[in-house]
Amino acid sequence: MPDPTLATLATPALVVDRTALDHNIATMGGRWPGAALRPHVKAFKSTALAARLVEAGHRGFCCATTREVEGLAAAGLGDDLLLANEVVDPTRLRRLAALVADGTAKITVAVDSDETIRAAAHAGLREVLIDVNVGLPRCGCDPDTAGVLADRARAARLEVRGVMGYEGHVVGVADRAERDAGVAASMALLVGAHERVGGDIVSGGGTGTWDDNTWVTELQAGSFTLMDTAYAALGLPFRPALFVLGTVVSVNAAGGWAVADVGLKALGMDHGNPKIDEAAVWFCSDEHVTFAPRPGSALADRGVAVGDRVRVWPAHIDPTVSQHEALHVVEQDGAGAVAADAVVVDEWAVDLRNW
Amino acid sequence: MPDPTLATLATPALVVDRTALDHNIATMGGRWPGAALRPHVKAFKSTALAARLVEAGHRGFCCATTREVEGLAAAGLGDDLLLANEVVDPTRLRRLAALVADGTAKITVAVDSDETIRAAAHAGLREVLIDVNVGLPRCGCDPDTAGVLADRARAARLEVRGVMGYEGHVVGVADRAERDAGVAASMALLVGAHERVGGDIVSGGGTGTWDDNTWVTELQAGSFTLMDTAYAALGLPFRPALFVLGTVVSVNAAGGWAVADVGLKALGMDHGNPKIDEAAVWFCSDEHVTFAPRPGSALADRGVAVGDRVRVWPAHIDPTVSQHEALHVVEQDGAGAVAADAVVVDEWAVDLRNW
Repeated sequence: MPDPTLATLATPALVVDRTALDHNIATMGGRWPGAALRPHVKAFKSTALAARLVEAGHRGFCCATTREVEGLAAAGLGDDLLLANEVVDPTRLRRLAALVADGTAKITVAVDSDETIRAAAHAGLREVLIDVNVGLPRCGCDPDTAGVLADRARAARLEVRGVMGYEGHVVGVADRAERDAGVAASMALLVGAHERVGGDIVSGGGTGTWDDNTWVTELQAGSFTLMDTAYAALGLPFRPALFVLGTVVSVNAAGGWAVADVGLKALGMDHGNPKIDEAAVWFCSDEHVTFAPRPGSALADRGVAVGDRVRVWPAHIDPTVSQHEALHVVEQDGAGAVAADAVVVDEWAVDLRNW
Repeated sequence: MPDPTLATLATPALVVDRTALDHNIATMGGRWPGAALRPHVKAFKSTALAARLVEAGHRGFCCATTREVEGLAAAGLGDDLLLANEVVDPTRLRRLAALVADGTAKITVAVDSDETIRAAAHAGLREVLIDVNVGLPRCGCDPDTAGVLADRARAARLEVRGVMGYEGHVVGVADRAERDAGVAASMALLVGAHERVGGDIVSGGGTGTWDDNTWVTELQAGSFTLMDTAYAALGLPFRPALFVLGTVVSVNAAGGWAVADVGLKALGMDHGNPKIDEAAVWFCSDEHVTFAPRPGSALADRGVAVGDRVRVWPAHIDPTVSQHEALHVVEQDGAGAVAADAVVVDEWAVDLRNW
């Protein structure tokens, strides 16, 4: 069997533009080199893509699930793994502790309460960060209690490596000055907590605050690798590097719409509909996207036919990738575009799915 | 290892209330017995759950993907499978034709264009339904061209078993009289097309129109099995039979919110946020749901603690189930409720995921 191309690949299929991915990794690495960047694997859930970040010098990773930690460790990428999430499941935490004990991985977990400290200590884990709430109503202790929690963690024989806090409530603010102010306010809380906690690490930030967060010692960014339409709206220098390839399966000429096989089960929908170039997306169903070429566009001029391929740009990368089994890798041609018949040069398993 | 219970099961986890499921199957079977119901497996994607429908007398199934068709056939449930979707991938269609040729399954596919007729005939498939657009801007031919398409299908040596058409644009209409009128208008188009097409089958409808669609010879319903909050709002007699079990991982007492480990990657989000009993759901993140107990509720009175279990009711069942690997089966106790420590009596693989 010859390698598939974008004209023959079975659809729906995630496609990674490796040229754009490499650009994004290089751009981020210019500002956050080596250990200053702790890439968040939840965005792409692939050890093969993680390995590409290791090649670029980033050997520590951020994880949202224990399966992500275990998968990276099993792939030999366990130099410095941070579970940036609260977990109280004793079975899962013991599995992580076993990976530490046998030397497979160095693992640090986030804690934000007496319960999570107790769970980590009881499982036999050794290293923690104090997770601090810096304004997003989610996990993290009150900044004022971070020092007390650190003392309790040390009393439980845990090494406290520092603090983490995510300013997720301001990451998507489009106005730059407003975003800067929000980041500064959040990071003032985190830095204050760090003074009371101690340790070497101040971990936080993300793709949306990559160049205005000047307080953290390491950036927890993941979306910059592949990007999505929500982050693209912020005017960042990272390029769209992932689309869902679809096939047109039905065309309604009288109604002016067409239907491709990229639906709710192939897309994360919390940020709204995906985009299709030169078209208006009407709505998504379980296995379909209904769209209409924009009047006057080249797509409208040449028309849409059953069997045509379309590129569907997801609004939110993380819950899009997690619905697929593989990333299909292509490269740009000399003209700086991914050709319609680009060869799939690699297939990266989405091997960190589920929990 | 003892069987897990809802107090020990690793989370997030899909949980099926089999008592409610059996009620739903019996209720639907009372109106649509045997072959009059063609359950749509896209809602639950599990051959084990499909087998329960076979036990109740429904031996024909409706599928949205070729993987669903192949999985049902491999499980010995291939008596009469309808791929109610347009597919033009020759490799996939040939795999289905091979299952027909070797006697593993009887397979009928939907066609709505010359291209899909050609694809089916060329792959060696033998039986089709003419998919008719009855108002939802998605697949299906114009009702006026259905007869011509049927003639072309027969000329391509395909047996035309009848028509299908889905009135999805009116399924969610809350007002009963308005919904009835919409269904009647759509079905008038389908019945008119059927007169021009011929064949024995008029396939359509769904959970939302189960008792007002009196035109189809077989109902394509799937969501009634497990239900979701969107369908629950229609006042149907089917009971909620699926929730996502979560664990509280963080509590912010001062802010009045808590966080459980059921997020965007465990939920279909196109219909909006899930529900949690006695609580307001604030938002979902990749791995989290932030919620606040409603003032005055029993939940607010007893408080939420790290480690507590919560039941998260999804807004849309199909893209929720497709994100999980298994359905964990429990039963109601004598009081008609699923106990907090209910034993997981069975695990049904979500074995029809992906494409």
